Amino acid sequence: MEKLGFSSSSYSSTADDPKAKNDQEIAERRIQQLSSHLGGQPCLLRENQLLLVPCARTKLHVSSDSLANYMRGKHRAIQEIIFTFFNSRPDLQTPVEISTKDHRELCMRQLLGLVREAGIRPFRYVQDDAEKYFAIMEAAGSIDISLGVKLGVQYSLWGGSIINLGTKKHRDKYYDGIDNLDYPGCFAMTELHHGSNVQGLQTQATFDPVTDEFIIDTPNDGAIKWWIGNAAVHGKFATVFAQLVLPTNESKEGATVGVHAFIVPIRDRVTHQPLPGIEIHDCGHKVGLNGVDNGALRFRSVRIPRDNLLNRFGDVSRDGKYSSSLPTINKRFAATLGELVGGRVGIAYSSVGVLKVAVTIAVRYSLLRQQFGPPKQPEISILDYQSQQHKLMPMLACTYAFHFATKYLVEKYSEMKKSSDDLVVGDVHALSAGLKAYVTWYTAKSLSICREACGGHGYAAVNRFGSLRNDHDIFQTFEGDNTVLLQQVAGDLLKQYREKFQGGALSVTWNYLRESMGSYLSQPNPVTARWEGQEHLRDPKFQLDAFQYRTSRLLQTVAVRLRKHSKTLGAFGAWNRCLNHLLTLAESHIESVILAKFIEAVQSCPDRNTRNVLKLVCDLYALDRIWNDIGTYRIVDYVAPNKAKAIHKLTEYLCFQVRNVARELVDTFDLPDEVTRAPIGLQSEPYAHYTQYVGF
Amino acid sequence: MEKLGFSSSSYSSTADDPKAKNDQEIAERRIQQLSSHLGGQPCLLRENQLLLVPCARTKLHVSSDSLANYMRGKHRAIQEIIFTFFNSRPDLQTPVEISTKDHRELCMRQLLGLVREAGIRPFRYVQDDAEKYFAIMEAAGSIDISLGVKLGVQYSLWGGSIINLGTKKHRDKYYDGIDNLDYPGCFAMTELHHGSNVQGLQTQATFDPVTDEFIIDTPNDGAIKWWIGNAAVHGKFATVFAQLVLPTNESKEGATVGVHAFIVPIRDRVTHQPLPGIEIHDCGHKVGLNGVDNGALRFRSVRIPRDNLLNRFGDVSRDGKYSSSLPTINKRFAATLGELVGGRVGIAYSSVGVLKVAVTIAVRYSLLRQQFGPPKQPEISILDYQSQQHKLMPMLACTYAFHFATKYLVEKYSEMKKSSDDLVVGDVHALSAGLKAYVTWYTAKSLSICREACGGHGYAAVNRFGSLRNDHDIFQTFEGDNTVLLQQVAGDLLKQYREKFQGGALSVTWNYLRESMGSYLSQPNPVTARWEGQEHLRDPKFQLDAFQYRTSRLLQTVAVRLRKHSKTLGAFGAWNRCLNHLLTLAESHIESVILAKFIEAVQSCPDRNTRNVLKLVCDLYALDRIWNDIGTYRIVDYVAPNKAKAIHKLTEYLCFQVRNVARELVDTFDLPDEVTRAPIGLQSEPYAHYTQYVGF
Repeated sequence: MEKLGFSSSSYSSTADDPKAKNDQEIAERRIQQLSSHLGGQPCLLRENQLLLVPCARTKLHVSSDSLANYMRGKHRAIQEIIFTFFNSRPDLQTPVEISTKDHRELCMRQLLGLVREAGIRPFRYVQDDAEKYFAIMEAAGSIDISLGVKLGVQYSLWGGSIINLGTKKHRDKYYDGIDNLDYPGCFAMTELHHGSNVQGLQTQATFDPVTDEFIIDTPNDGAIKWWIGNAAVHGKFATVFAQLVLPTNESKEGATVGVHAFIVPIRDRVTHQPLPGIEIHDCGHKVGLNGVDNGALRFRSVRIPRDNLLNRFGDVSRDGKYSSSLPTINKRFAATLGELVGGRVGIAYSSVGVLKVAVTIAVRYSLLRQQFGPPKQPEISILDYQSQQHKLMPMLACTYAFHFATKYLVEKYSEMKKSSDDLVVGDVHALSAGLKAYVTWYTAKSLSICREACGGHGYAAVNRFGSLRNDHDIFQTFEGDNTVLLQQVAGDLLKQYREKFQGGALSVTWNYLRESMGSYLSQPNPVTARWEGQEHLRDPKFQLDAFQYRTSRLLQTVAVRLRKHSKTLGAFGAWNRCLNHLLTLAESHIESVILAKFIEAVQSCPDRNTRNVLKLVCDLYALDRIWNDIGTYRIVDYVAPNKAKAIHKLTEYLCFQVRNVARELVDTFDLPDEVTRAPIGLQSEPYAHYTQYVGF
Repeated sequence: MEKLGFSSSSYSSTADDPKAKNDQEIAERRIQQLSSHLGGQPCLLRENQLLLVPCARTKLHVSSDSLANYMRGKHRAIQEIIFTFFNSRPDLQTPVEISTKDHRELCMRQLLGLVREAGIRPFRYVQDDAEKYFAIMEAAGSIDISLGVKLGVQYSLWGGSIINLGTKKHRDKYYDGIDNLDYPGCFAMTELHHGSNVQGLQTQATFDPVTDEFIIDTPNDGAIKWWIGNAAVHGKFATVFAQLVLPTNESKEGATVGVHAFIVPIRDRVTHQPLPGIEIHDCGHKVGLNGVDNGALRFRSVRIPRDNLLNRFGDVSRDGKYSSSLPTINKRFAATLGELVGGRVGIAYSSVGVLKVAVTIAVRYSLLRQQFGPPKQPEISILDYQSQQHKLMPMLACTYAFHFATKYLVEKYSEMKKSSDDLVVGDVHALSAGLKAYVTWYTAKSLSICREACGGHGYAAVNRFGSLRNDHDIFQTFEGDNTVLLQQVAGDLLKQYREKFQGGALSVTWNYLRESMGSYLSQPNPVTARWEGQEHLRDPKFQLDAFQYRTSRLLQTVAVRLRKHSKTLGAFGAWNRCLNHLLTLAESHIESVILAKFIEAVQSCPDRNTRNVLKLVCDLYALDRIWNDIGTYRIVDYVAPNKAKAIHKLTEYLCFQVRNVARELVDTFDLPDEVTRAPIGLQSEPYAHYTQYVGF
């Protein structure tokens, strides 16, 4: 498309630039030209625009300290204990190359060190201080993503299943062993043939009234438990998800009452040998996360006491009668899985942590690296190339946006754990699904972009992009495949949509739909569609309107399509026929929530300078996302061609502006050198560290 | 955006489908409705449309054999020798997990086996039968990408530098040793501080008239040769690129006459110890390609005979006088680097090979894997989900498109090596740069998408996506950073553009610009902008017009912008101000060339059924690319909203159509199981192979 020139570099008038004076003059002239162009349209939406940054004339003043202060979570102290502990223990640091076998042992030693030596007890916070728990997980993940995941398997999954699906007898028996790592355990849900479709699991737990036991069985190869973390080497127990089968008078096979969770000891507490009837194999080398020992489990008539049923949502009496406070299999299933939402919150949050590390390394190296330049002048930093800014600056803006969105999610989750308010529960479920999917997709793509943006040196393993990408990769899949999770978000939106028309309450996060739905069903306003002034484009009201308009329109149109198709194709067929549409809807909604949270964070920032910087970053986030989907806006004529071009021009300009404060913006992430580690991303003398690493 | 429903599944009326009869009826009705909608517009461009496939009513009949026959290169036989050799030698197969140290040794043994046992001598084809050479390289890369690259380092780079930059004396002395691997060698161009900017290299080669030698020196840490393949372990020689410095009367330091290449022995031929003055370090573990031993080299006054200057383009006499057939440093530099274009051709070609493997595994697994389904019915293949089709079917179409484009490139390159015709040389240079960048970017992104599309099992290392991605990753960077290469393409287009207005000849590949430029400077035709009939959208003339319109417009607008900005910013500043625009231009051009070649390949296909299938795939390629950039087309009103929606609808429908022949389309790639290897991508009993691999 046509990209009109925006005289961006003319604005970089810093005192130490030799060309500054000359540039200053050019800039003055151009500003005059442009101000009539950019500001020429009247802007009627003045309410929220006190934050428009007058950044055209002066370089923004950024205080990393002040910004870091504003962004820092309240559990920084415990993270620093973790950093300091590992920094003092070279024997617990993961080398650049390590075999799977050694990595697994090291990872276990890291976890033991954290718990038993550094005295961090994550399990104590899982239930009562989720924010602290996620802060610990993030810090552990920054030591080695495998460690973060191993910790999650032990405390969120295995430990979480005891706390959330079990009752007092289970907590009394297992709490201490989980907490102090005497009882390493597994979460055995996924099977070879079933991942996303948990209700399709085939492992069976048949009650034997004679011995008062359950018999756990793997009926076929497809039902082998697969990818079970902690199973290949360290686990002593597993929470096994299986179809609960009860004896009936009618049939010999019994009847299933749905998927339930059972505690199954898998290895001898003393000899650590697999127990009788338990066949364990090693899932082997993985793309990443090789510090975590994933295994496959097959059960051959393994008998466990009736008490090992995690019976919070359903129980079996001595005589084989089933009882539950929840009336249907579907409701019990939803309650069971609902308790696992914490994993998604943790993944979304940790994914942002990974993104911060990668962006920091890539930005610092791009400032350091010089290549080519004007004739007979010194080479310039590669971050001064428009193409490099295009790769990294919107990514930096997204990182900020995700920071605030996941911070909000963690707070909401923490609130939910305390209150169990129904509206909050629904909100957290959909938001955690959506943010987990959206953020992990974005981070995964960005890791590849960062590697490539750092060229050959980005390909050195010591510079981290490879292991970050490989380890993070599965974040897109585990604890809910992203494509499946986004469908949950879309389903939830449709439910809200139906309820709106039935007069019900909308949950908090989607409240905007109530107001926007009505107004957006009409055609876009042909007058505002042409406004192209900078004041208008940087007005949060315009930005939010654009995001929410899109979501509302997608929601309304997909609802119509689903209704139409379901007549001929049935519900399942109609859903599949509209699947791309539904996924686009879900992503659009999540982007709307992210932007709204970012704008709130800008507006709540007390310090003026800091707020101005955040506003700049937020504008880049908003306009880059709009430009990224400009086809959608053009197809419905929400923006006219002149406005589309103005958005693009302004986005390039904002990239340039953000580039000028990029160093400060990554410093704000507050990552100590022992966390970034990549020689090319260190705060001082990166090349020297790099040559030293190689042996010079 | 709104996604109108296209009744795709109604068309899948195959005989063995239990619902077929019912669907058939629905389909008939819908076809009637749709035909008026889709075919309603008159189509005036009838010339090329004999190929419109009547696929709406019947499932396409695909013969993989016939299609494979048409696509297969003429050097399949030598590839099969290579497959058979490695298949018979388990000791030479790369295990799923291997340490860097072992991998390097194995890779060398693989290369030795290929050359000395299987009797394949790649060096003999480098110059005289490039197509055969690339076929060998592709097959070697399918055994292990490291092997393909190690082979390339030895024969294209180290060997190629002797052949292309040296003269008879060099060939006489080194040919046999390179050919039979007695002389493993390196290509020492890149330095720590300089990769893309080769003219900025700092290593010095100073002529000493007293001893008739060159003295090779590394003046500072930034000038350490870095990433040099074969250097860390196996290399005995290196072609070292250095500033040639000659003594002058005026200055003690001498004067540089630009970058030249020198043969420098680096290790003792017998003891294999580094020679005096040569400091070698290991660049260490990399993101991938760990079978290749990259090292760093520092030279301390290393003396080599004058004869070791590769003197094809410039020579130094006994008394230190410089002579060259080329008048300037820049021309000599261009001639020197120009000879290296073969590397890019090989990378583009091999990258398509990697993409084929990945797509094959992902498609086969997506057909096998079942998850969820309509209530009380069997689960369905995940490839039946619209979202999975959206991920994989355009990718499959791109793979076909790239196949024909790189086949064409290899043929052109081969022609160039024989004729040295100036127009062909220019064409091959720009096309190899552009295709290398475009294809490797696309493949890199696709490898991540394939991994994610295969969920958890895609994360098992044995299923290949991890190593393919990690090994392939650097294809985007080495032999020319993609962002830099695309700028060469843009520069070449601008040169052609200027020459057009000066009446000169356009080179072959850009010929379309001549005709299109004139007509596209006017506004798009508001009548054709609304045509939305299937006949029109599937007309190659419309498709090509869309691609070429975009390129012409981008070219014309960027030329204007560059002229404007260069007045205030100078040439370098103006280029940087327009950089994103220039990169978009280059990509757009490459897409135009790819589409043109694909359309040619469809039209040249003699068998009607095969041609119909290719036409279907080609339509998906074209429309997916147009939809992918729909914002651009909408901004200039090249397509009206109704047409944009019709393009989208048809793209989804074509995805569904291609899905119905997806198995046959990947079978056509002709990859034996010993090449795909991933258990989940095998042609029979994938799950059984997978459980067996894990130990059940």
